Amino acid sequence: MDPILFDDSYFMKQAIQQAEMAYEKDEVPIGAVITYENRIIGRAHNQVEQLNDPTAHAEILAITAACNFAGYKHLDGCTIYITVEPCLMCFGAIQWARLSKIVYGAEEPKTGFDSKHQLQTIIPVIGGIESATCSALMKTFFQSKRN
Amino acid sequence: MDPILFDDSYFMKQAIQQAEMAYEKDEVPIGAVITYENRIIGRAHNQVEQLNDPTAHAEILAITAACNFAGYKHLDGCTIYITVEPCLMCFGAIQWARLSKIVYGAEEPKTGFDSKHQLQTIIPVIGGIESATCSALMKTFFQSKRN
Repeated sequence: MDPILFDDSYFMKQAIQQAEMAYEKDEVPIGAVITYENRIIGRAHNQVEQLNDPTAHAEILAITAACNFAGYKHLDGCTIYITVEPCLMCFGAIQWARLSKIVYGAEEPKTGFDSKHQLQTIIPVIGGIESATCSALMKTFFQSKRN
Repeated sequence: MDPILFDDSYFMKQAIQQAEMAYEKDEVPIGAVITYENRIIGRAHNQVEQLNDPTAHAEILAITAACNFAGYKHLDGCTIYITVEPCLMCFGAIQWARLSKIVYGAEEPKTGFDSKHQLQTIIPVIGGIESATCSALMKTFFQSKRN
């Protein structure tokens, strides 16, 4: 496979697949994958409803999965791809995990660590990757809930 | 048992017992308990090293345990007692869990949601309960690590 295929868009589409799984289970459709040297070492989707657990956000579960795979509590050199801008809890978890890069899709003005809380980080952050698909999933989900 | 015994100090001592368990396992000694109407419905201690999981803070594990007990993703009416001021991640988790009160022991200037990040919340917060014991545990732990 051509290495050029492994760009941010490629891995975000993997995170979107996770978000779609969440959608099918009637969960807020957010997905995350964690990569190390272009390999996915953790993937997860939001499971708050299924697990009755408000901490079961995609990022938390993906970090737990990746650390389990790595056998270590830190993820130096790894990138997390998330379909929606992380909340305070997940942003904190990303910092504890020492992830080296954050890539997200849609902005989250109500709960986002940057959009809402203006929190700074030394970790490089890239937003807006495949954001149309990511935010369309969220909009469709919440519209269906209101109807 | 006299109801007056069930004050913040009583439940903080239960959280301190958890912190002591963490200390014995060579974990950063932080413990948490969650109460509903003077009954403990979740208790946990920091397990980051044991689980190789940077998200395994006492508060996260206590929330997961309490939600599991309650069979619901929200903990309205519940109080969380934590031996140390919560970090960003745990503060976010406490908000998602809709806990009704936060009681902590020792302040945490390096990572505390308030002491470090000056984050506001509508949840009532009480700090400084049994703080001498809580901070002594932390100091002894980190001193032993440096030696």
